[in-house]
Amino acid sequence: MRSHLDAVLFDIGGTLVDEADPHTPVAALAAVVRPGVLDDLGALTAQGIRIGAVTNTAVMTEADIRALLGPVGLDDLLEVVVTSADVGIAKPDPQPMLVALERMSLVDATRVLYVGDRPTDGEAAAAAGLSYADVGTGTVGDAISTWFDGVAGAAWERARTGVGPLDAAAGAAAAERHATLTKPPGSLGRLEALSIQLSAIAGTCPPPAPGPATVVVFAADHGVVDAGVTAWPREVTAGMVANFAAGGAAVCVLARAEGIEVEVVDVGVATPIPATPRGITTRTVAAGTRDLSLGPAMTATEVRAALDVGVDAAERAVTRGARALLTGEMGIGNTTASAALVAAVTGRPASEVVGRGAGADDETVARKIAVVDQAVRRVPADADAIGLLAEVGGLEIAALTGFIVAGAAARVPVVLDGVIAAAAALVACRAVPDLAAHLVAGHRSAEPGATVALAHLGLEPLLDLDLRLGEGSGAVLALPLLSRSVQILTEMATFADLGL
Amino acid sequence: MRSHLDAVLFDIGGTLVDEADPHTPVAALAAVVRPGVLDDLGALTAQGIRIGAVTNTAVMTEADIRALLGPVGLDDLLEVVVTSADVGIAKPDPQPMLVALERMSLVDATRVLYVGDRPTDGEAAAAAGLSYADVGTGTVGDAISTWFDGVAGAAWERARTGVGPLDAAAGAAAAERHATLTKPPGSLGRLEALSIQLSAIAGTCPPPAPGPATVVVFAADHGVVDAGVTAWPREVTAGMVANFAAGGAAVCVLARAEGIEVEVVDVGVATPIPATPRGITTRTVAAGTRDLSLGPAMTATEVRAALDVGVDAAERAVTRGARALLTGEMGIGNTTASAALVAAVTGRPASEVVGRGAGADDETVARKIAVVDQAVRRVPADADAIGLLAEVGGLEIAALTGFIVAGAAARVPVVLDGVIAAAAALVACRAVPDLAAHLVAGHRSAEPGATVALAHLGLEPLLDLDLRLGEGSGAVLALPLLSRSVQILTEMATFADLGL
Repeated sequence: MRSHLDAVLFDIGGTLVDEADPHTPVAALAAVVRPGVLDDLGALTAQGIRIGAVTNTAVMTEADIRALLGPVGLDDLLEVVVTSADVGIAKPDPQPMLVALERMSLVDATRVLYVGDRPTDGEAAAAAGLSYADVGTGTVGDAISTWFDGVAGAAWERARTGVGPLDAAAGAAAAERHATLTKPPGSLGRLEALSIQLSAIAGTCPPPAPGPATVVVFAADHGVVDAGVTAWPREVTAGMVANFAAGGAAVCVLARAEGIEVEVVDVGVATPIPATPRGITTRTVAAGTRDLSLGPAMTATEVRAALDVGVDAAERAVTRGARALLTGEMGIGNTTASAALVAAVTGRPASEVVGRGAGADDETVARKIAVVDQAVRRVPADADAIGLLAEVGGLEIAALTGFIVAGAAARVPVVLDGVIAAAAALVACRAVPDLAAHLVAGHRSAEPGATVALAHLGLEPLLDLDLRLGEGSGAVLALPLLSRSVQILTEMATFADLGL
Repeated sequence: MRSHLDAVLFDIGGTLVDEADPHTPVAALAAVVRPGVLDDLGALTAQGIRIGAVTNTAVMTEADIRALLGPVGLDDLLEVVVTSADVGIAKPDPQPMLVALERMSLVDATRVLYVGDRPTDGEAAAAAGLSYADVGTGTVGDAISTWFDGVAGAAWERARTGVGPLDAAAGAAAAERHATLTKPPGSLGRLEALSIQLSAIAGTCPPPAPGPATVVVFAADHGVVDAGVTAWPREVTAGMVANFAAGGAAVCVLARAEGIEVEVVDVGVATPIPATPRGITTRTVAAGTRDLSLGPAMTATEVRAALDVGVDAAERAVTRGARALLTGEMGIGNTTASAALVAAVTGRPASEVVGRGAGADDETVARKIAVVDQAVRRVPADADAIGLLAEVGGLEIAALTGFIVAGAAARVPVVLDGVIAAAAALVACRAVPDLAAHLVAGHRSAEPGATVALAHLGLEPLLDLDLRLGEGSGAVLALPLLSRSVQILTEMATFADLGL
């Protein structure tokens, strides 16, 4: 749930502890913890979700509440306790909740859930911009799970239904403009086609420059690593995440050279990430997937949550000003999941889509093929995007799927990196059939599944440099070609200018 | 001769006019023009070569000399007249010549020839840094021609013999460094090979960044246009040269985006170049080639002069700080000459190397094939670089050949653009067999001859974007990949840095 929540704020009476009779003298109050509360709060903390309390009381201060909750073990769990007596105004006024957000330095209220038991709690949460879950007669854990099941996938649904068609008129205007420029018609080959596509995506000719650009590196682990599909240990994912944050990875070097922003999003890294000088964005859905050689890699809710993570990353990047979105990823084992998705969508046999990934030997490749072959048999031919990802996908691949679709919905070109992105794009096209027209294939990965996937998508990659690193490296290398295609359209002289 | 000369300075007595008896009173002096002088000077002026005079006289000022030369029509031809009496010191002191250079704003003394008739003339010219030709008993035209035949090709010979082998140790060091970087071995594919090549070229690991970079656009016309090998009129060459100078051509737009310097060199544009806001470099060898469908396109001296133009452009760029040289060209008809060179060197039939160039229709292509087929039959199998170019080459192709070789001699990577550059590289390799290791093929031109030539050279292009524009556009688009390959080697973290 870390994917959607930075913190949960709780009401106290009736939510964390039994409601006391309002006539009980303060001195006579004794906290009786509601069933499951300590376990449920511990589970949140274990996920890195922060906890606080906001409560209405006419007379008690934070210190009074903490003294009351101490004996039952709740005091230590609550980072802040804000009482209406402290603030001077009670719920449904949002002020006590806003004070809690401020004291916890929580800047994004949409990523904070309030759990309470009365209509005033819900009204206050709505007024403060927080999500709200009513505990009802169940446990707080149930209330939070129910809330999460309801919201997970909402961003994805919004993005998926928000993708519009390309603007054919803008594309045609770009083609017409090309015919006036001082060069033989068509002589700039794919640069011309690219600028026409960018015009059609943006709905204007000439199109806006594809910059500033952002590459988002989604990182997650894969249970299928236990099946021996790679020589690299799981811990490399976490190590590389630290390397991304420190700027030492290939994608960072390449992005820096082009002025491309790098955001690193942890969607499900299973092992501890070493301390980093720069922050990463924590959006953990789970500590990696389950082993897809044994059964489904994810639940549908996990898939939806991961899809939302990608949508959110794309939308935040566009809000920050990004005019091109580049896909990046890191996840030991993810070429296996990608190959399985490519095989499942295209119907090609595992042997034609499995490659060496980060350098697998013959024996490992044979194991990879067997794993993919078996897993793909479990996938129904008509599986939808969520079904595909749940069975044989990965958390970062689901996030990429959401990212790609949200970029298309925002009418921003999405530049695909290698086989992982191509697999995500295949899944995205299952959800949004005409999506491929919004996509640019950055390069042809050396992984065979990439070529199969791109052919299925009808995409011809811009670069073919025998790259097989991933991270977003090939997308970052391709971005200048997008920029140049736009500059040609905007800056070249016309034959009329020349009097020719 | 405009390729090697900006100006000619003449001695007067014994050179332009008959030597007077030193005892003749000034009032009794009358100029007798030496045979051929007026025609020879007119021919220089027609080429755009500027003319002045520097003479020893104890008593006469510039005005006296001009009064004397006026009646015979010489006064009008001389931009400056500098006398030793004006300056206060006589040849062999270089001061009078230096005064003439300054008055004519001639900044490059090596591109100024002094023509005289006495040892002191030669001594003064040498001291002033000027070239020198002794008129002897012949005409000044003969003296200048003899001088030119002697110097044309000297820069080419120097460059050709100056190309050294690659530094294998530096290349090996780069390969070793790659193995320490935080990525699977070899996963950056051709970027890794490129950085290894750049290390071997520079002789250091990591190699210097390939910037600043310069693309030199060599422009010239082709007599073979008269044979109907293109739909574009000859005048387009001149028009596009003006477009380059104005910054409106594709190569200018692409170069500007990458901070790449563009120099435009006129090696032989046949029609007047429209006025331009920015200068071009005038190095005219001839007003275009002769029609290669009828006989040799150039004389050996013209080829040598054009080779020198390319060498000079490369050396000047490197002196200005260029750390990568990119080939550019413009010349209506030059895909025909290039196809002929590719056919002559590789032995492939014309039908396999001739393409549509700037958009030729089927009939024109058939004519092109016939022209190439016939012309190539005249080329001896063992023709050397100069022989190849003289028979079926072009002035800008010869210049590119010199440019490529001089870049290699300077240990600077040379990035080839399309089929014209590939043809020049084939010729260059005939002169310097191991040259290809110094070259990077920027892209695979849509012209079939480019693919044939690159295969013959053993070069795999970096980009394949269906470009067929020329100008240097594909080389400019490829340059960022060279930069990125170096940055990967210099900036990436190692596994040791990460503790992995």
